[in-house]
Amino acid sequence: MPLMDLRPLLQNNGSKIVLYVWDGLGDIPSGPKMQTPLQAARKPNVDKLAAEGVTGRLEPVSPGVTPGSGPGHLGLFGYDPVEYPIGRGALEAVGVGFDFRHGDVAARLNFCTLDAGGKISDRRAGRIPSDESKLVVKKIAEAVKEVDGVEVLWAPVKEHRALMVLRGKGLGEAVEDTDPQKEGVPPLAAKAKDKGKDNVRTAQIAQKALELAMAAIKDEKKANGILARGFAKRPHWPTFEERFGLRAAVVAGTPMYRGVAKLVGMEAQEATNEIEKDVASLAAAWDKYDFFFLHYKFTDKAGEDGDFDAKVHYIEQADSAIPALLKLKPDVLIVTADHSTPTAMKGHSFHPVPTVLWSPTACRDAVDRFDEIACIQGWIGLRPSTHLLPLALGHAGRLAKFGA
Amino acid sequence: MPLMDLRPLLQNNGSKIVLYVWDGLGDIPSGPKMQTPLQAARKPNVDKLAAEGVTGRLEPVSPGVTPGSGPGHLGLFGYDPVEYPIGRGALEAVGVGFDFRHGDVAARLNFCTLDAGGKISDRRAGRIPSDESKLVVKKIAEAVKEVDGVEVLWAPVKEHRALMVLRGKGLGEAVEDTDPQKEGVPPLAAKAKDKGKDNVRTAQIAQKALELAMAAIKDEKKANGILARGFAKRPHWPTFEERFGLRAAVVAGTPMYRGVAKLVGMEAQEATNEIEKDVASLAAAWDKYDFFFLHYKFTDKAGEDGDFDAKVHYIEQADSAIPALLKLKPDVLIVTADHSTPTAMKGHSFHPVPTVLWSPTACRDAVDRFDEIACIQGWIGLRPSTHLLPLALGHAGRLAKFGA
Repeated sequence: MPLMDLRPLLQNNGSKIVLYVWDGLGDIPSGPKMQTPLQAARKPNVDKLAAEGVTGRLEPVSPGVTPGSGPGHLGLFGYDPVEYPIGRGALEAVGVGFDFRHGDVAARLNFCTLDAGGKISDRRAGRIPSDESKLVVKKIAEAVKEVDGVEVLWAPVKEHRALMVLRGKGLGEAVEDTDPQKEGVPPLAAKAKDKGKDNVRTAQIAQKALELAMAAIKDEKKANGILARGFAKRPHWPTFEERFGLRAAVVAGTPMYRGVAKLVGMEAQEATNEIEKDVASLAAAWDKYDFFFLHYKFTDKAGEDGDFDAKVHYIEQADSAIPALLKLKPDVLIVTADHSTPTAMKGHSFHPVPTVLWSPTACRDAVDRFDEIACIQGWIGLRPSTHLLPLALGHAGRLAKFGA
Repeated sequence: MPLMDLRPLLQNNGSKIVLYVWDGLGDIPSGPKMQTPLQAARKPNVDKLAAEGVTGRLEPVSPGVTPGSGPGHLGLFGYDPVEYPIGRGALEAVGVGFDFRHGDVAARLNFCTLDAGGKISDRRAGRIPSDESKLVVKKIAEAVKEVDGVEVLWAPVKEHRALMVLRGKGLGEAVEDTDPQKEGVPPLAAKAKDKGKDNVRTAQIAQKALELAMAAIKDEKKANGILARGFAKRPHWPTFEERFGLRAAVVAGTPMYRGVAKLVGMEAQEATNEIEKDVASLAAAWDKYDFFFLHYKFTDKAGEDGDFDAKVHYIEQADSAIPALLKLKPDVLIVTADHSTPTAMKGHSFHPVPTVLWSPTACRDAVDRFDEIACIQGWIGLRPSTHLLPLALGHAGRLAKFGA
């Protein structure tokens, strides 16, 4: 459901909003005590926010639907992820800080290992370390700079991952993945998804570029092949500032999350994934922005690993950063998640995420602790995650009265 | 609100979902103890589902709107009943197992008693028993087989109810009811609702067919007249399998409920309205389907009769079937209702229906019993009933992640 256009109501009162995302935080009760990690953790600071503020649950995409990291964050930023679909290549390009321009077509690459017959024997090239991967990308970048008048750019990402960007006029993004998603077969050819001239030409250029690149690394032991996925252009979206009147900063140590924030126009600050340092980076930018998106990664990783105790530990670590945030005197401080990653499921899930919104204008509810079950009773209720940003603006006094 | 199109996300993991509908279950507190029948009943099995699973409430059509049986069920099946309107004739035709084809126009008939002046003296022909009604239909079917080149088919339903189906080219369904909804006046003539050629012609044919039929039964003592309602074609809807990837079975002893399930493509299994036998019929089909809609009728009937004690009794009977369903090891087991039928109101009502969803992936909430009031505190929250099917798919692991 599209929400009301808030632009006519925006007013700048100098207030500040902090959105502190604990990635993959949501969980389901499990283990002998049938608790969630949030229920098991000692997290006095976020519990205090819950006691003083309001709580509730946000549904990231649509009932029953499990979000990827991009859609999960877009919802929290007030962008309906169904209305604002985003290609993997675009997300990656912006995420690594690549100068990704309108008109460019990006694809996410995985290095793979090809056997003597050209068939994929390892889809992730033994997960080669980033240092090694960087050298492989360098080799390619020196060998392949242009194809048929189109500039071809290459960038390392992390471990076996890299990025290819085509830059030129009249490129299309409707190009199929070359990753067959299995081993024992050769990589697929890059093919256009339709007969559109731009797409057909782009597929041909991409295919030629990938062939030349693979020729350049054919003597590598592990990373001697390339699989391309998620061909995409940079989307033309209205920015966060245009839609919500907020100059926004992102502090996120992981490229993916920084990327999605930059796609809506947030400005990236230094970030390390060490929470104390990241809060200090946020504090250093305090005067320059109205809105701060701070990302905490490790809760998700623990969920993916199915490690209950680790998730409890990382929740406690994330919690410890809250006093330093409160010291900045935000008008609204939100703790929530982009999606649930239940340890019992070892992956993202569709479960709504627990949410606390602390603000002097909050209608303090009866909930005095922060967990999935307690939040059911909270003031915020159960809502699509796109409701969060308008609520934050309201609490921050940034929306003028509607109508006389 | 139209929900997200789930088709691109569907994945078949072999999981199984059971939707166990207790018809008209929802109620409001009444009587000296101010309890609902659900609160008064002893129903240990569904209470256990509530304790182990998640609970909540579903709003069948729209706030404040009382659903008929068709819309009530469509919502539970994930079809917004406002977006998927359904004519009574169509529902009845599919319900009785009639070979109802695209292009056919069906009308639901009530036999009535006409006095010597041709006026209706009993709108339900003394509720003549089915055996008697069957003979009347047979008489008509022998007398009226065709009108103006259009085939006319007749079928008994239950007691004083029957079905007329017109089959031929270029028929329209916009034909007014001939039932004046009161006694002391003659039946109305079948009239087209607009000037559309198909509708005008169909109204004329229907009128002629009804006149010929009434001539054939003019000597009947009770069923000597006919009232036609709900002229309708079979709708062109995407099937349950197309929309949700589920091969679906319906076990419902009453034609109407079987009918609405068949309209979305569910396959009818043997059903008797004896719950033990119906569960056995469901179990016999276990390997052939992914989704099972099991219907329990008597809770609604007790509500319509305003019989609190009977409703309590039938709730307990419905509850007793749950262990046999759990023995089948469903991945998701849902108990809910198509609508409320409060005993104090003796009819359908708009009140949201209590719902429990049991699944190993459920985020077990604090609710440990199943009734209208307890469910207010549950994880599912208060939602339109069209959210149920997507939530079931999510819990069953049948939806792939959305976005990277």
